[in-house]
Amino acid sequence: MIFRQLFEPISSTYTYLLGCQITGQAILIDPAMPAWERDLEVINGLGLKLVYTLDTHIHADHITAASKLKQMVGSKIAGPSLDKLPCTDVPLYEGTRLQVGSILIDPLHTPGHTDNHFSYLADDRIFTGDALLIDGCGRTDFQSGDAETLYRTITQKLFTLPADTLVFPAHDYQGRRVSTIEQEKTRNPNIGNRKNLEEFVKIMQGMKLSYPKFIDYAVPGNKACGTCPPDVPENLQQYCESMGVSHQG
Amino acid sequence: MIFRQLFEPISSTYTYLLGCQITGQAILIDPAMPAWERDLEVINGLGLKLVYTLDTHIHADHITAASKLKQMVGSKIAGPSLDKLPCTDVPLYEGTRLQVGSILIDPLHTPGHTDNHFSYLADDRIFTGDALLIDGCGRTDFQSGDAETLYRTITQKLFTLPADTLVFPAHDYQGRRVSTIEQEKTRNPNIGNRKNLEEFVKIMQGMKLSYPKFIDYAVPGNKACGTCPPDVPENLQQYCESMGVSHQG
Repeated sequence: MIFRQLFEPISSTYTYLLGCQITGQAILIDPAMPAWERDLEVINGLGLKLVYTLDTHIHADHITAASKLKQMVGSKIAGPSLDKLPCTDVPLYEGTRLQVGSILIDPLHTPGHTDNHFSYLADDRIFTGDALLIDGCGRTDFQSGDAETLYRTITQKLFTLPADTLVFPAHDYQGRRVSTIEQEKTRNPNIGNRKNLEEFVKIMQGMKLSYPKFIDYAVPGNKACGTCPPDVPENLQQYCESMGVSHQG
Repeated sequence: MIFRQLFEPISSTYTYLLGCQITGQAILIDPAMPAWERDLEVINGLGLKLVYTLDTHIHADHITAASKLKQMVGSKIAGPSLDKLPCTDVPLYEGTRLQVGSILIDPLHTPGHTDNHFSYLADDRIFTGDALLIDGCGRTDFQSGDAETLYRTITQKLFTLPADTLVFPAHDYQGRRVSTIEQEKTRNPNIGNRKNLEEFVKIMQGMKLSYPKFIDYAVPGNKACGTCPPDVPENLQQYCESMGVSHQG
């Protein structure tokens, strides 16, 4: 499998490119609007053709490039069926595998950061979106977030994957790029080292995080599969417009 | 490829199991004596047959299980040709690929921690031994270590691998298990973020590390491919004897 971990520095988002060496088909997981040109450049440079974009959830910090990429190269928009977005071409269901050439993607419903959040398992790699981060996890204090639900998602679904499964999150704010299930089980400060539900909920409730500055534009924009709302203030436009992001960010 | 990252907690050593799904052949990279029974248990549990052990270098902190495993299951001892150890069955050379079923291993000469240190590249994974660690690197102040040489190894050889190559080190003392070349290039505090030779040498020289407590036994023991010297004091015997290390350490 051809694999690239691409970084979009404005929202610190990792976008994942998975390509089939046999058919030349490619998918992108969580493409971000400011980097759509960079993403296509990488795909074209590898001689691949983008056939699907997959979002893990309705992001609150950036606009997905799903619609833009569909408009540019005809890729199909895939995402959690539970979101019931009219703009989704291919709704994904847990238990129904998506096959793209030799790439096999198993969608997993991993709620807690948002209620309809999905992770995507491809062989020995799990793309965890904002459910499980490296030494952290997504916040649970906005949208449809719920700490108890996220605890069950991580401990009962993600932590039961094989220990050496590579964890690729949607974000990292400190330059870390990959982890494993065993690493997170052992040392994740929020939920690792056998923390119980009560401890986890207390940690999540104690975070005192500020209101996400782009959420009021990102959520409606992403419910439309990636439309930059017309009233975005100038200082926030970088979150939803192409900024010429370079290859390795 | 079947893949397992196994942890030996006495010396915090990672041992890597690579297995071929077609032939059932397996290799171990850097097996440690205290965990030889655990390693064989995992190999047997997967229905594999150990055919090679590969050491990255003459370790100073533990005794390799290479000879013990050869004695138990007939695996061949492979390692850097430059070490010229009479006990090595298969000397490895940079530029000469080792094939074990469908597993292809490219040995890379990566000196600096020791002069004959090798790393092993298998597809998108580099097993860096003590040359490059996660957020660190091997010390250069004993055996045949040399900071300038390690700087050249990391910046000119390891950092020129594809950005998404997974970095699997021989040790981690904080429970981290995997990194990537891009992550280390960006944020390794010793050598990342474009540190120059002078800065690196200064960092390495300023470490004030204590004399390794087991080195005087480990080095001769490993030059014999894993012989526990007869005069090891009782409090250090755990570094070279089977301690019933469990599956996930």
